[in-house]
This record gives sequence, structure tokens and C-alpha cells, in this order.
Amino acid sequence: MEQIMTLVEPRPAATSAKLPSDEGVLLVEGEDQPGLIQAITTVLHESGANIVSLDQYSDNPEGGHFFQRTVFHLPDFTAAREDLEAKLDKVISDDFGLTWRLNDRSVPKRVAILASTSDHCLLDLLWRHRRGEIPMTVSMVISNHTNVANDVRSFGIPFFHVPSQGADKSAAEAEIVRLLRGNVDLVVLARYMQILSPSFLENVEVPVINIHHSFLPAFIGAGPYKKAKERGVKLIGATAHYVTEDLDEGPIIEQDVARVDHSMTAADMQRKGANVERAVLSRAVTWHCEDRVIRHGRETVIF
Amino acid sequence: MEQIMTLVEPRPAATSAKLPSDEGVLLVEGEDQPGLIQAITTVLHESGANIVSLDQYSDNPEGGHFFQRTVFHLPDFTAAREDLEAKLDKVISDDFGLTWRLNDRSVPKRVAILASTSDHCLLDLLWRHRRGEIPMTVSMVISNHTNVANDVRSFGIPFFHVPSQGADKSAAEAEIVRLLRGNVDLVVLARYMQILSPSFLENVEVPVINIHHSFLPAFIGAGPYKKAKERGVKLIGATAHYVTEDLDEGPIIEQDVARVDHSMTAADMQRKGANVERAVLSRAVTWHCEDRVIRHGRETVIF
Amino acid sequence: MEQIMTLVEPRPAATSAKLPSDEGVLLVEGEDQPGLIQAITTVLHESGANIVSLDQYSDNPEGGHFFQRTVFHLPDFTAAREDLEAKLDKVISDDFGLTWRLNDRSVPKRVAILASTSDHCLLDLLWRHRRGEIPMTVSMVISNHTNVANDVRSFGIPFFHVPSQGADKSAAEAEIVRLLRGNVDLVVLARYMQILSPSFLENVEVPVINIHHSFLPAFIGAGPYKKAKERGVKLIGATAHYVTEDLDEGPIIEQDVARVDHSMTAADMQRKGANVERAVLSRAVTWHCEDRVIRHGRETVIF
Amino acid sequence: MEQIMTLVEPRPAATSAKLPSDEGVLLVEGEDQPGLIQAITTVLHESGANIVSLDQYSDNPEGGHFFQRTVFHLPDFTAAREDLEAKLDKVISDDFGLTWRLNDRSVPKRVAILASTSDHCLLDLLWRHRRGEIPMTVSMVISNHTNVANDVRSFGIPFFHVPSQGADKSAAEAEIVRLLRGNVDLVVLARYMQILSPSFLENVEVPVINIHHSFLPAFIGAGPYKKAKERGVKLIGATAHYVTEDLDEGPIIEQDVARVDHSMTAADMQRKGANVERAVLSRAVTWHCEDRVIRHGRETVIF
Repeated sequence: MEQIMTLVEPRPAATSAKLPSDEGVLLVEGEDQPGLIQAITTVLHESGANIVSLDQYSDNPEGGHFFQRTVFHLPDFTAAREDLEAKLDKVISDDFGLTWRLNDRSVPKRVAILASTSDHCLLDLLWRHRRGEIPMTVSMVISNHTNVANDVRSFGIPFFHVPSQGADKSAAEAEIVRLLRGNVDLVVLARYMQILSPSFLENVEVPVINIHHSFLPAFIGAGPYKKAKERGVKLIGATAHYVTEDLDEGPIIEQDVARVDHSMTAADMQRKGANVERAVLSRAVTWHCEDRVIRHGRETVIF
Repeated sequence: MEQIMTLVEPRPAATSAKLPSDEGVLLVEGEDQPGLIQAITTVLHESGANIVSLDQYSDNPEGGHFFQRTVFHLPDFTAAREDLEAKLDKVISDDFGLTWRLNDRSVPKRVAILASTSDHCLLDLLWRHRRGEIPMTVSMVISNHTNVANDVRSFGIPFFHVPSQGADKSAAEAEIVRLLRGNVDLVVLARYMQILSPSFLENVEVPVINIHHSFLPAFIGAGPYKKAKERGVKLIGATAHYVTEDLDEGPIIEQDVARVDHSMTAADMQRKGANVERAVLSRAVTWHCEDRVIRHGRETVIF
Repeated sequence: MEQIMTLVEPRPAATSAKLPSDEGVLLVEGEDQPGLIQAITTVLHESGANIVSLDQYSDNPEGGHFFQRTVFHLPDFTAAREDLEAKLDKVISDDFGLTWRLNDRSVPKRVAILASTSDHCLLDLLWRHRRGEIPMTVSMVISNHTNVANDVRSFGIPFFHVPSQGADKSAAEAEIVRLLRGNVDLVVLARYMQILSPSFLENVEVPVINIHHSFLPAFIGAGPYKKAKERGVKLIGATAHYVTEDLDEGPIIEQDVARVDHSMTAADMQRKGANVERAVLSRAVTWHCEDRVIRHGRETVIF
Repeated sequence: MEQIMTLVEPRPAATSAKLPSDEGVLLVEGEDQPGLIQAITTVLHESGANIVSLDQYSDNPEGGHFFQRTVFHLPDFTAAREDLEAKLDKVISDDFGLTWRLNDRSVPKRVAILASTSDHCLLDLLWRHRRGEIPMTVSMVISNHTNVANDVRSFGIPFFHVPSQGADKSAAEAEIVRLLRGNVDLVVLARYMQILSPSFLENVEVPVINIHHSFLPAFIGAGPYKKAKERGVKLIGATAHYVTEDLDEGPIIEQDVARVDHSMTAADMQRKGANVERAVLSRAVTWHCEDRVIRHGRETVIF
């Protein structure tokens, strides 16, 4: 047995995901019209881009809503980007009246995670982040408690404690907004047990993803696992969704369930539910960071 | 190619399941007390029964509710039954104050299926019945429509048409009760789209199992698949349950889900939902007919 | 209760699936090259076609193999088809050197099902066919036994008995080829327990899909469920694949598994396995009939 | 934002699972005979034990092999244990000739985890251990590499580096045996990429659980994910089993699969496979530590 006296290789906070270089991802959506795909692929082709993958969906080929995600390879993407954007704007916005956005696949999303005392969703994200499974950089973790501080910092990630006691949450929310604004592209609520105000959502200016448990049928209010147990449900689940002003009612990104039976206590069911929650949230965050999700009203298209 | 001029082997209406002979299944439930399992197994042992399987559950070992399912082999079960029942009653009812019932595993449950125009759940049951997968005899199929008549009769099973038009369903219900009473041990609502009155449940005197679709979150009212589509759900499901006076709220026997995505229309989702419904209902009916389900308030214990 | 004296509505043998009219599906594959998608969509656009959906995949954007499935709407498709095909051939075959095929979505695939004594896969297909779930016409069922004849004919579908006894199967195979050739677009082996010769595959001239059970680990030879039981496996599965000269080794279309445990007998496992088999085969046949499967060597791309 | 200057609550290496006190778990197996359950439950009842749960299985009620797991509550279990064991031995061993073992549920299993460079299985176990999901104490982690050392020690668990280079592994194995012997009740190979010799298994004297990937069909040799990709498989899986002299052929404890498709690279498949591996291994270790697994030849009974 050899003694290891020194710490082995410091671990980077930034993502270790191998991100593709010279690749862009183009998301387009708007009113479906003949010739759209042809027009978009023509711009890309004439700009020297080679299409790596193209996903497209229309909720009604006759006058419905059109969605497209195109990944392409373009040598010297950084240099060529401005010119390409001008051409895309001309065709997609001006000619067809659709909206679009272009992202550089070599740039990971900057993500803040908000948590409370439960660590299962938080740690699953940090862990997958370190394994390079998600194209993101975790810029910070914010919690209204301190018990996850050590774990977070052991991943080399900043931890900020923002207490949130009392009825008036406005000071806490303002502080969180100060920490986030300009610094992140996505906020993930990893079992953050504080209700955020509509003004927070407005001020934070980036998408917010939440996870909550789900049951068939639904159980309202406190102690849902206890209620599910009393009702004899055989499946428990979790739903990840974008946060909107309608609490727990925003566009769904991902859902999953696990099987339970009479021999499980409410605590057993909650533990199994936690495993579903972390899996569902991690998939939702991954898909968002890979620019696979397009929101459309209360629906999502996942490419 | 050979000509086949005559019909090949007529198909029996009764179950083709190979049912075990000389085997009993004993279900016991009531207040948990020390010594219960020992007392029950002692009666069985002293009566010459050999235990094939024993499942037991207590929702709280300290003063909770106790459930036990015991399958045993007893030579000449029919002859020995009366004597065994007297002994079981002495110990289980008199000494411990619990309730019990004993069934002969060689006797299939007599089942009536009620259906409307949808045939997916009905045909799945008839088909599994013919394959010998469920220890039941399908005594009759009753429908308020006629479109499934031919299919049912091609399985050698009686079909009865009981129309159910107008606001007053009492005459139709009364006719159904006349057909069922004394003839069946279980009623299965296989997408029977009529609401049954509390008095029907009382008069029919046997358990009634129903199947309905389930979503996370739940959608109330008509057109649930359309609503689920608009809400962007990623899972659709089905729930089989015992019918009680609380519509769709009785004890759950089984649930399952299937994955859907944005590219599916409401009709696609409904078709996929139908496949979940038939699988879930068939499992629930099988478990009931195998005496694996014990109801306890709004819960079920499934052994 | 009303008497129903006459048979209710005769059931059509042809598919009841509502097939889209004026829609084509174009499958393209070959060496990946820049500008492919743009070129193909340009031909479609200039021919007046509106793209309904487009799926595309390249196994390596730099010089890999390219696959595309495009569904489009084109008014008066039948009349416009010849002209469109000429243009597609010019661009896809001549300019880019790729292979392609175009199908009319209003025309169901003509399918022959070969079965032996097991009926679970056969009946699942006939049933889904009647429910309109699969865009196919079942032209005939051929079996080396007669026990499924009645069932098949009750669906209004021709049944042919081709016995296959003795070591020399060449006469039987020749008769089957005579029945099939020119009449069908797909042959489905629904638990057909005869090994087909390479010359059969060559002479039948259409794709052949087979289903077989699968285990982790695999069990060679007879009685696989018994071996799986002895080995204590916890999952049993099924694989649907195209038949090639390498028995059971052709390109995989679909796979699935179900959970088993120690309390199940080999017969229980076989019954559960049958349910997996019929689900997997039905999905594979559906995808094939929807032109969603592109074969490439021993792989399949499923759009 | 408050400054947190000090480390928050040190984390214990021992399990945080709340283990039940005054509860025993009795495992019995051997030749099935009439009266077994009655005899065992009578001993327990007469010793003042109250049965919490009883699972029983016989692979053939007529002269097969019998398995039983009984959890019971017995006040002052520690004091009463010796007396109870004497009575159990009298009845189970002497009268019936079966084997049995009795464990105290308040005592967690002492576990050693062996790992190499991959950390997904290792960290999942450490994490669930810290969350109290598994009734075990992780006594040590041993690796032939050092890259997981920091992670392990951050959980408060000893890490030992035992290099294993060169053809002769006997010195390394001997050192591992010295570390383990007498200190642990279970060895878990969490992607430990060294082949252990039969003599290691003999010397370590406790059960060894391993995890490996599984495919339908199986792929032999190096680079299985690449081979699975080339073969177009649609499911990838993992198997956890007890290690025996037959490499990767020991009794299976748990298996599971995940769905893959053509668009995934071999690396994507490997990543998804890693998630299946960690879930399957964690379930297998949990069940073993809960005394739910009884080995019987190449099979396992999981209660």
C-alpha cells in the first residue's frame, strides 16, 4: 500500500465536457410556411456550413407553428458568425417573419443552482457536471441553508448563503438577483423550497427550471407522499418544468415515474421519489443546455 | 397448399388455464397480534395441508393491520374443506377476531365484462382468457352498443345488448343486475362509458373493477388527451381500481404509464393510452382472479 | 335486452387506418456531402411540395453515411409523381450519387404473416391491423399448422396451409414463394418455427422481419426459458430484426424486456416473454410500414 | 449573504441509516418439508418474538428447495439472542436438517469497495451511504489507482492505494486480503478492472459482488459498446452478480436496461450504460445488506 501524501489533481469548477468547436446550433420557430427548410438550409450551405443534424417539427403542416433545430459545422465559426447572423436575419426574420437564435456549441451554459436542505438533486447535477455529462459551467450554488456548503465547495464551486426567513422575501430575492444577473444563462431550482415572486422571474431575465414530485392522481398540499400512501398509488413520479407565474404549471420538459407498493412506508416512497426527481431534473437541465428545448406557450418541443 | 374445409377445433368459452387441483388460498386480515402467523400455520399443518406460498404484511407491527395470503396443498381438498373451515373459524375468527376467506384454486372466477364501443380492453381480456393466462371464466359480455357482439361470440361467449339511452338509467341497470346476480363473482368495466349508480353497486353484490386514463397532472372533464397535448405532458397513464361510490376514486389495483412526445397528435396519444389501459386492466383482473388483492379502506395490498 | 339476430357490420380485411392522401415519404441514403439537405429540400420546394417532417442523420458529418426521411404534402401527388421522381433522380442519384426511394403514404404496405402454432404475435398484428394502428393490408396468413385458421379467417383474411414436414423443405418453400411473389411488400415471421433457406430470402424479393426472444446473457439452443430460470436472470426480452442469411443476426429494429423473478416458473417466464414478443414485433412492423426504418449494413436507423 | 467561515457539521463515515433496534432477520433454506413454516414460527412465537414480515418460497412444494426470510421484533434482542439461537438450531438444524443464519438488524454490514479509475459506481454507493439509504458502513475503499482518493476521503472514508501492475497480481491480492480479512462482511467491485484469482475469493472469506455491462445479444471481448453500436442494438444493460470462479457467471442479483438509438455514439452509449450500472449495483448492494438475497446454486432468491 502506497502512501498518498498530497492531494491528487485539483478538480476544475468549469465543465469537463468535451464541447465541439466550430459548431453552431440554430433554433428557429414561428408560423409554418412553404419553403422554410429549403431557405434556411440554403443560407447555411451558401455560408459554408455543413449540417450535422437537423430536427424539424410543425404542429400542423397547413398553417401551424414551425420549429427547427439545426446543428452545423462551420470552419472558423467565431470569425464567420457575424456575417452568418446577418444573412440568417435577412431570410428568417425579414423574409419569413420567424424568430431565431444561434448559439456557439463550444460555449457551455452558465448555470446557477438554488437549493435548500435536500441535496439529492443538487449533488446529482454537480456530479454529472464534473463527469462532463452536461455542457454547462456551474457558476454558483445559492441556498437559504448552509448544510450543503461543504459539498458544493468540495466540487470547487462557489457557495452563497442567502437566508430567507420571515414573511417578506423581497430582500432575499433582491440579493439573489444581484448575484445572478449578468452572471448566468440558466437558474435551476434543485428542491429550493421557497416560492419565488413574479418580479423575481422578471428580474432574473433567464429561464428558470424547477423540479417537483408528481402523482396519479395529484395530491394537493403538504405531505403528498403520505397522501399517496393512504390512497394506495402504485406509481410515484417527478416533473421538471420551466417556472412561470403559474406555480408548478409551466411548460413541462421531462417526467418519469417509479413503481411503489403497499410494503413501502411514506419515507420509502419519498426516498424512491428523490431518485426519480434527480434523474428527471438532470435530463431536463442537460436538454436545455444542449439547446434541445423550444418553449411554445405551455408546450415544449424537445429535439 | 391443403384445403381446410371444416372448422378446426371448436374453442371453449370456459377458461383454458390449467388450474391447480387440491389447492386452497386463504386470505386473512384484521388487527395485528403476536402469534398470528404461528396460529394459522399450525391449523394448516395439523389439517394435513402443505404450505406452497405464504405472503404476509402488517402496516405496523405494533398494533397495525395484518394481511396474509397463504396458498396450500391439501389432498382431497373438496372433502377436507368443511372440516378445515371449522378449524380456521375457531382460531382466526373466535380466538383472534380477524376476518378470512378460503377459495378453491381449481375453481375459476366467473366474470362479466361490460363494454361500450371501444374494444381494446375487452378483446385483450377475451384473448388472454382464451390463452389460459387468467384463472377466470367469462360468463357474459354486456354492452350498451352492438358493435362488439360478433367478436365476443366468436370467442364462444354470450353477448347481451342492454341499451342505455335517455336520462333514466334505472331500467338498464336493473336488467344488468338481473343478468349478473348469482351468475358472476366479478364485474369488469372494460371502457363501459355509463356511470353506474350507488344502488347498482349495492345490488350487484360482487366487486367491480374499472379502468380509466391517468395523467400527471390530472385533467378533469372531456377530451383529456387534447388537454394533455396542450399542456405538453411527457407521460400518459392508466389506473385500474375497484369501483366505489366515489367515482374513479376507489382503491387502486394497478397503474402504468407510457412515454409521449410533442410529435404525437392527441389521437396518437389516445392510441398509445389504449395500449396502456388494456395492459393495466388485464394485470388488475389477473391479480384479482388469483386472489392476490386485499382491499383495506382506500388502499390495496397486492401479494 | 334486445335480440341481435344478424351479424353486425362485416369487417374489412383491408386496413382501416386513415392514411394521409397527397403525401409522399422520401428516403435517401449514401455518402454524406455538404449541401445535401439543401439540394433535396430545394427540389421538393420547387416541385410545389410542402415539407411535413424531415429527419436526418449522419454517422459522421465528415465523410460519413447520410440518411434522410422526408414526409411532404404535394397536391395531386399521383399526377405529379413522375415529374418529381425525374427531378429527384437527377439531383440525388446523378449529382450526389446517393440512393433514394419514394413512397405514396396513401398506399398501405401489403403484408404476409407466416405463423406456426403460437398465435400471440399473429393475433396482435391482426388486431392492431383491424384497429387501424398499422398502415398495412394483411394480404394472407400462411402456416405450417392449421390451428390458427379460424381466427385468421374471422378477421376476413385469407389463410393458407403449407405443411412443412420432413427434412426437405424446398417444396414447401417453393409453394410459399409462389403465394407471396408479386403479392406482398413485406413478410413477417410471427413465431414461424421453420428455418428459411437463403434461396427463399432471395426468391421472396421483399424484406422479411422476424421476432425472437432475447436474454442477458444469451442462451443457445433449445429451452432458453428453462436455462434462463436456472441461471436466475431478472430480465427477459425480445428482438425484432430483418432476416438475413445469418440466422437471428440481421439488423435489429426493436428490442424490449420485462422483469422476472425467482417465483416465476419457466412457463410463467415464457408467458411474460410472449407479451414482450408481440409488443416488440408490432412496433417493428409498424415502423417498417411507416417507412421509418433504413437498413445500413448490420445497423438500422429508425426515424 | 452571510459568510460561513467554518466547516458545517463533520460528516460521519459510518452509516446514517436509521437501523431498527431489537429486530432480527432469520434466513432459512434447505429441503422443503411439511410443517416447516409452522415449526419456525412456533419457535419465534414461544421466544417472545413478534413477526414483522415473513417471505417464503419453495421451488417445488413437493420435495423442492425451501427458502424463508423472517423479520421479527424481540425486546432485548441482544440479551435474548443466544437462547433463541439454541432453540432455532434445535428445530431447524437438528429436526429438519436445514441451514439458517440470524442477523441483528441494528448492525450495519461492513463493506469494502474496490474501484479503479471509473468513479460512477463508487460515488453512487458513497452518496447513498451518506444519505442513509443502505444499511452498511463503508469501512474502506481500495483502488489500484489514486484518482478517486480525494473524493473518497471527503466522505470521511479511508482510502488505500494498492497498485496492481505487471503480470503477477499475487502480491497485490495478498495485500488486499490483509486489509480486508476480519474487517468486512462484503466486498463490492465497483468497476474494479482487475481479474481476481480463485484463491483471492477463497481467502477473502466474504461475499463479493460485481457489476458488468450486459447486452442483447452479448458481445465478447474489448470495446463492447463499439460492437453494440455496430450491431445496432436498441437496449444496453448491466448485471450485478456474486463473483464465483466462473468470471461474470456467478448468481445474478439484479439487472436493468436503458434504451439507445442510432444517433448515439459509442461514447454516449457508454455514458448511459454507466448510469444503468450505478443504479443496478446500488440496488444489489442494498438488497444484500438488507439480507434479502439467498444464493442457491447459480440462482438467487430475492425477498
